[in-house]
Amino acid sequence: MTDKQRVEFEHGPYRSEHDSIGERAVPRDVYYGVQSLRAVENFPITGLTMHREIINSIAEIKKASAITNYEIGLLDKKVADAIVRACEEIVEGKLHEEFIVDPIQGGAGTSLNMNANEVIANRAIELLGGEKGDYTLVNPNDHVNCGQSTNDVFPSAGKLAVLKLLVRAQIQLERLYTALLQKAEEFDDVIKMGRTQMQDAVPIRLGQEFRAYSEAIRRDIARFERAMDEMRCLNMGGTAIGTGLNADEQYLRRIVPNLSKVSGLRLVQAFNLIDATQNLDEFVAVSGAVKTCAVNLSKMSNDLRLMSSGPRCGFGEINLPPRQNGSSIMPGKVNPVIPEVVNQVAFNIMGNDLTITMAAEAGQLELNAFEPIIFWNLTHAVEFLTYAVSTLVDNCIQGITANRDRCREMVENSVGIITAICPHVGYEAAANVAKKAIQTGRSVRTITIEEGLLDEETLNKILDPYAMTEPGIPAKELLD
Amino acid sequence: MTDKQRVEFEHGPYRSEHDSIGERAVPRDVYYGVQSLRAVENFPITGLTMHREIINSIAEIKKASAITNYEIGLLDKKVADAIVRACEEIVEGKLHEEFIVDPIQGGAGTSLNMNANEVIANRAIELLGGEKGDYTLVNPNDHVNCGQSTNDVFPSAGKLAVLKLLVRAQIQLERLYTALLQKAEEFDDVIKMGRTQMQDAVPIRLGQEFRAYSEAIRRDIARFERAMDEMRCLNMGGTAIGTGLNADEQYLRRIVPNLSKVSGLRLVQAFNLIDATQNLDEFVAVSGAVKTCAVNLSKMSNDLRLMSSGPRCGFGEINLPPRQNGSSIMPGKVNPVIPEVVNQVAFNIMGNDLTITMAAEAGQLELNAFEPIIFWNLTHAVEFLTYAVSTLVDNCIQGITANRDRCREMVENSVGIITAICPHVGYEAAANVAKKAIQTGRSVRTITIEEGLLDEETLNKILDPYAMTEPGIPAKELLD
Amino acid sequence: MTDKQRVEFEHGPYRSEHDSIGERAVPRDVYYGVQSLRAVENFPITGLTMHREIINSIAEIKKASAITNYEIGLLDKKVADAIVRACEEIVEGKLHEEFIVDPIQGGAGTSLNMNANEVIANRAIELLGGEKGDYTLVNPNDHVNCGQSTNDVFPSAGKLAVLKLLVRAQIQLERLYTALLQKAEEFDDVIKMGRTQMQDAVPIRLGQEFRAYSEAIRRDIARFERAMDEMRCLNMGGTAIGTGLNADEQYLRRIVPNLSKVSGLRLVQAFNLIDATQNLDEFVAVSGAVKTCAVNLSKMSNDLRLMSSGPRCGFGEINLPPRQNGSSIMPGKVNPVIPEVVNQVAFNIMGNDLTITMAAEAGQLELNAFEPIIFWNLTHAVEFLTYAVSTLVDNCIQGITANRDRCREMVENSVGIITAICPHVGYEAAANVAKKAIQTGRSVRTITIEEGLLDEETLNKILDPYAMTEPGIPAKELLD
Amino acid sequence: MTDKQRVEFEHGPYRSEHDSIGERAVPRDVYYGVQSLRAVENFPITGLTMHREIINSIAEIKKASAITNYEIGLLDKKVADAIVRACEEIVEGKLHEEFIVDPIQGGAGTSLNMNANEVIANRAIELLGGEKGDYTLVNPNDHVNCGQSTNDVFPSAGKLAVLKLLVRAQIQLERLYTALLQKAEEFDDVIKMGRTQMQDAVPIRLGQEFRAYSEAIRRDIARFERAMDEMRCLNMGGTAIGTGLNADEQYLRRIVPNLSKVSGLRLVQAFNLIDATQNLDEFVAVSGAVKTCAVNLSKMSNDLRLMSSGPRCGFGEINLPPRQNGSSIMPGKVNPVIPEVVNQVAFNIMGNDLTITMAAEAGQLELNAFEPIIFWNLTHAVEFLTYAVSTLVDNCIQGITANRDRCREMVENSVGIITAICPHVGYEAAANVAKKAIQTGRSVRTITIEEGLLDEETLNKILDPYAMTEPGIPAKELLD
Repeated sequence: MTDKQRVEFEHGPYRSEHDSIGERAVPRDVYYGVQSLRAVENFPITGLTMHREIINSIAEIKKASAITNYEIGLLDKKVADAIVRACEEIVEGKLHEEFIVDPIQGGAGTSLNMNANEVIANRAIELLGGEKGDYTLVNPNDHVNCGQSTNDVFPSAGKLAVLKLLVRAQIQLERLYTALLQKAEEFDDVIKMGRTQMQDAVPIRLGQEFRAYSEAIRRDIARFERAMDEMRCLNMGGTAIGTGLNADEQYLRRIVPNLSKVSGLRLVQAFNLIDATQNLDEFVAVSGAVKTCAVNLSKMSNDLRLMSSGPRCGFGEINLPPRQNGSSIMPGKVNPVIPEVVNQVAFNIMGNDLTITMAAEAGQLELNAFEPIIFWNLTHAVEFLTYAVSTLVDNCIQGITANRDRCREMVENSVGIITAICPHVGYEAAANVAKKAIQTGRSVRTITIEEGLLDEETLNKILDPYAMTEPGIPAKELLD
Repeated sequence: MTDKQRVEFEHGPYRSEHDSIGERAVPRDVYYGVQSLRAVENFPITGLTMHREIINSIAEIKKASAITNYEIGLLDKKVADAIVRACEEIVEGKLHEEFIVDPIQGGAGTSLNMNANEVIANRAIELLGGEKGDYTLVNPNDHVNCGQSTNDVFPSAGKLAVLKLLVRAQIQLERLYTALLQKAEEFDDVIKMGRTQMQDAVPIRLGQEFRAYSEAIRRDIARFERAMDEMRCLNMGGTAIGTGLNADEQYLRRIVPNLSKVSGLRLVQAFNLIDATQNLDEFVAVSGAVKTCAVNLSKMSNDLRLMSSGPRCGFGEINLPPRQNGSSIMPGKVNPVIPEVVNQVAFNIMGNDLTITMAAEAGQLELNAFEPIIFWNLTHAVEFLTYAVSTLVDNCIQGITANRDRCREMVENSVGIITAICPHVGYEAAANVAKKAIQTGRSVRTITIEEGLLDEETLNKILDPYAMTEPGIPAKELLD
Repeated sequence: MTDKQRVEFEHGPYRSEHDSIGERAVPRDVYYGVQSLRAVENFPITGLTMHREIINSIAEIKKASAITNYEIGLLDKKVADAIVRACEEIVEGKLHEEFIVDPIQGGAGTSLNMNANEVIANRAIELLGGEKGDYTLVNPNDHVNCGQSTNDVFPSAGKLAVLKLLVRAQIQLERLYTALLQKAEEFDDVIKMGRTQMQDAVPIRLGQEFRAYSEAIRRDIARFERAMDEMRCLNMGGTAIGTGLNADEQYLRRIVPNLSKVSGLRLVQAFNLIDATQNLDEFVAVSGAVKTCAVNLSKMSNDLRLMSSGPRCGFGEINLPPRQNGSSIMPGKVNPVIPEVVNQVAFNIMGNDLTITMAAEAGQLELNAFEPIIFWNLTHAVEFLTYAVSTLVDNCIQGITANRDRCREMVENSVGIITAICPHVGYEAAANVAKKAIQTGRSVRTITIEEGLLDEETLNKILDPYAMTEPGIPAKELLD
Repeated sequence: MTDKQRVEFEHGPYRSEHDSIGERAVPRDVYYGVQSLRAVENFPITGLTMHREIINSIAEIKKASAITNYEIGLLDKKVADAIVRACEEIVEGKLHEEFIVDPIQGGAGTSLNMNANEVIANRAIELLGGEKGDYTLVNPNDHVNCGQSTNDVFPSAGKLAVLKLLVRAQIQLERLYTALLQKAEEFDDVIKMGRTQMQDAVPIRLGQEFRAYSEAIRRDIARFERAMDEMRCLNMGGTAIGTGLNADEQYLRRIVPNLSKVSGLRLVQAFNLIDATQNLDEFVAVSGAVKTCAVNLSKMSNDLRLMSSGPRCGFGEINLPPRQNGSSIMPGKVNPVIPEVVNQVAFNIMGNDLTITMAAEAGQLELNAFEPIIFWNLTHAVEFLTYAVSTLVDNCIQGITANRDRCREMVENSVGIITAICPHVGYEAAANVAKKAIQTGRSVRTITIEEGLLDEETLNKILDPYAMTEPGIPAKELLD
């Protein structure tokens, strides 16, 4: 069976296209062309397709390029309009199934760029009344790719996509910040035992713990702001290696402002296009910020799982909202499934970060051929984080309740509060009380009163939740 | 709009199901049930579904369990048969779209297990002539999950899936090994310059280089063999925490042998089910073997890209088969796209390995709740490696050709061959020739003859490709 | 001030040496030479020196080479004997301070090899009654390095060193295995609550938990065995690129057997010396095994910290032996410092593994120039693991005690034991008891008796530690 | 032999000290005390000691604390002065050998804090005329540690140390930036072939490549600036868990300003001390910036090794200054040893980053017990980077020379320049020339003239280094 027969057999009627490798049958009704098909055959890795935001972003770049090329007289109005319209359709979510190339691909993104060029050209041809494949009307290379090279289009599309995803991630982080602050207020009067190294330490208020989490997230939000700035700087106009060979000087000047308008994003052209074409440290920096946020989320999730451990044989300080059956074999079991998924997303992001780092390091001379794996990992990292934070807010944080009595009991029952009493009775007396408490299993409060060291009223004042947990005791009290 | 109205609106008629969280509308015609839906709402992370081999493996486990439960009298024949048939349909590739839970999920795999239990129960009900949702006929928990817990089913399904994927990966590695050996023979007489630290060193034959690659792959094949053994040991029968609470002693004895029969794989029951339920080092070990293979593949790909660099301004020793247009802007450019995709898959595998390591480390007490992210990463790692190796063999290695003349010229033109001449003329004379060669740009051969150090015949013998590249010169020659 | 004046000024009298870069003053009394000094100037990275086992291993290689070269007539007895004696002194721990090159060095190990050649030559010269620096007596290159190249010596030294360190690590793992088994027996009758996903699950015996840890360590011991085998295969005789250029055929045949004798280790010569010179996957595989062990150690340490959390506000199931004051501010606080250091060593090993992986991947063509960073990381990884396990055994595991009463109380007080009662009273009755227990805070045992579901005697049988925690209940009981 | 006899035997006379674990002999003349010794026994991991900057930083903190405690009346002048003087001696580099605890230690840094308290107390005692060990004069806890806890002292010391190291790293990065810019100017007129994906692309000037490197380094310098800001925020005053329990309110207010004065660094107190005590994301962020810089350095080093590959069988575009003999077996070989060491440091930094990430993620509740491994890795990362950049500048970049003729020849000989000719002769004619060039091996220039497509003068203008490598050709020329 010849190639054409096979296409005919599998896909029905075909058209014939050719590239530098030779001629090849393409299903007649598809918008992609021969070069997209070559890529599909070369890179059967994930079975998936490019992230939709990369597809949308490349369409925006093609649109901005067509507008620019029309402005400077390199495209006539009819062709430019058709290209612009085809690009808009893609951004509206159409034709995405025509982007058939695997997201993990060799060729530094050439395959995606050509896939876009072919789809846009064929759709533009159609809009102009032509037949798909009749590239004399609109040519994927000469018209759609005019003034561009994969080497400036592809990394720019990656940056645009990541930028958009970061915006959404930041929105979810803001929601998380608010939810944590609300819990901080709700739990402001819940006194509980603070623990260091998993050992009972000194009291803290549950609200303070949630406020501490919110602070960490606030830093992440600020880091995401800077991460966005790392993505705003594009190498459009640099063509093959950043020297802008064969790029029109007017195109060079106008393309990024036009792309800003088309995308609605604040963008700038790289000061040094050669650097911007070959060095991918900005993606590493962004991934670093995402990973740092993942560390905070995972630490917080670990704490939530610890504090809600039990219900009877664990810490039992808080209750996470039950979200689903915990066990098919153990009736009534409820598990911390939302923090668990956040942990896993965090671990995944750390793996993504490593891959991004390795791929960025492996760039050689004028280009980094490994951008596809960077985009695959970075879009995953940011997007999974966004969804994880979203479900964390909605399905966990907002529904957390405190076991106030148990929290208080543990404080009262702890030996750790001796630290608060210590400055008032002296170290030696305090140590004696502590030792008795440990030996007898009785409470520090009871022993302190029994021994006549302090009366109940004073003790109540000292063991007041706020007194114990807000910094700053006047020196004279310490010296008394 | 109530929940039911929304389901009706979005999916048409519904049925009502309930779990420990409460009642919930489920689209009437679907096979999954309320617990699957809860999971979908809780874990909207990747938008994808579980790896098909994990779905198939869990179906095999459910089938083996139904057979076992029938054998020991815990299921009657009718129900067991219906469950077995439903499972077989899944393995045949049907009903996969009913597995709707996200692969990255909290709950240690409970959601997938329940998704499977629900789908199998509803399909079995249907086979028995009942209505979906009528769990009195076949109950997801009591019948399909009988004798099991997520905590033994899920990790066992993961091991089965990885084992099957390793088998396929090994087949591709064998093909790669063969392809490399063929090239080793084809290029056995191509003398070329060996390089250490990117600097001209001493001659080597191109075939020797390919044979060296094949050796590394041979080690990987052996490591994959051991990796498979790490996956053969299952904790089926351990139920919740490996103590086998509520598991029938006959079930415990028969389930793994039955699963071996059902799956056609050599499997054993863990000696210590508690250990096998909580410690996931075996997955880390497998991932380590996959990563080690990725290192070899990536190193080889780097070499292929180096040796084929050019065509004129690089090493230019070999030609990779052209697979697609290399550039929209530079006519005639052909890029090493296949090695590039292999590199990227290797980087991805290294990220996968990190995530797997972190998730395995994070297990606590009787269970590791992070198995889902381990399976997501390990199935990706093995599968992407399989596809990458496959395209490497078919679209690259087999079509490599050598630029024999250029390879030989570079050797002749190099200063490095002085190392071979050195034992025959003495170090000082050799160093002089080398110095002259560097200063004048002329060849070591010419200068050696001109200086009367050796005649052409002797020189030809010394500079014979085999003489220079096969180990072992008799001591007397060295001392002459 | 000239170079010589500076040396004179800083180090007193000097001697003059030269290499391909030129002449250079060397302190007169030192054993290292000009090439060692160049390296010190080029690589001032860590301020530390090579791992002592790498130094010892390179001395063993030089000794074996001298013996071999004497056997085949390439060295006369006097010189060979002097070299052998100098090498033996190094292995005895002398002259180590003369190995001045930084462990992180460029040049693929040439600097260490030359440092060794120079130190050995000068000590041999001295033994023969000569003056240091008089290389006519014993030449670092022609005599000490005879038949060798950095490219076979350095990786072989690395493998020898790692092999020796793995042996010691395995001994400590064996000790850990034994200590865990002893605790498993000691705690065999301590019933406690099992937890999955940090939530109360079903009972387990503390001894079972320790036995599960021991099983994981047993697998690690087996993996270390295989890891050692990965290190036994040397490329000695391959010289520059594995083709053995300029190596005597007798040397080639004898060097590895001689090295086996000298080192007392089972070693083999690589079947393919070219492969063995350029592919470093064996180190990656070893690092993978070490990392897998680190995962198990870290998981176990996490569990120990969890189970010993408290003393009053945590799990409080076990007590780790107090090893040092826990706090300067909180009297009586004892922290799990030994597991904490094990966790940290595990995290460090995971970082080491990443570096090793990247360095192995980065090898190019006939050599991997990044062996030094691999050895720096792998020797650290194995050695720190050894010491961490050693202190874990001596200062933690052996002194662990159980809080038997608290463990039992938590089981009795838990709702989780309803799972064990379930098969005997039916799911619905069990669920009712569970619900009542949760609502009232009372124990499952009390309610079960009150409700007349089971009498105390039966209950005692069912809730017997062994009954609840040993797998396999006869089917008829389940069906009763 | 008793403990005391052993100490006597090994170290001579001893004094007796005791802590919560019991009594213990301490060598009489040492400044450290019983708690330091416990740590040495518990953590025999690396055999090394804490980074000197952490020791200096902890001394600065102790000094600032003593000053503050004197100001607010908690220490009398004599004791405060003695403590201050002891701290100053440490900063001057004295007493460092008394800091005996292993840098990898359990206990969240308590051991280092107590080591510092003991050394400072004993030196202060000595300055006051007392005998070492007479803690009635100056008490390690009550006086030296007054108002502090390990949990605020240790992370603050870590931040101070990293901050100081970042300053030094930035200075070296500035030097690298300058050196690269100088080379950019020196090589501004060296036309050479640009390569993408290792394949000949279009021309570039060598100076442009060095300028691109410098741009990347400029971004790193900016990221280091932000990294420093991440380190300026301290939790001093938070004591055990950030609630400031037992801290004087005046101490709280004054300690950070005083520490700023003592250290000469711009520092602020954390807005939320609880957050600052438990969340270590700032270290992860700093490590991310260091890692990003390592990516740029490694990529640049890879390029330098590629461009200097040869001398005859590689790219041969530049020469790195020879720094040492390249081979003991191949005379005249010079290797790119400096870039190689930079690569290795970069790989090491990536491993460090992973360890830091894991350790930061593993923090639990009110404290992260894994700070020691974070500081071990982060101080290494920053310091090794500093030294690597320093040697890169001095021993490599500054001495690089260009092979101008070879660079130009490769451009002239390349097919890639057809891309520049293309707009002037049309795509079809250009493609024909390219095809002929490839078939015949002749130059594009020759064929273009022969075919009468362009005259020599025009061709010279088009192939002018600047014309080909500076962006922006007027549209009309493109359309001609």
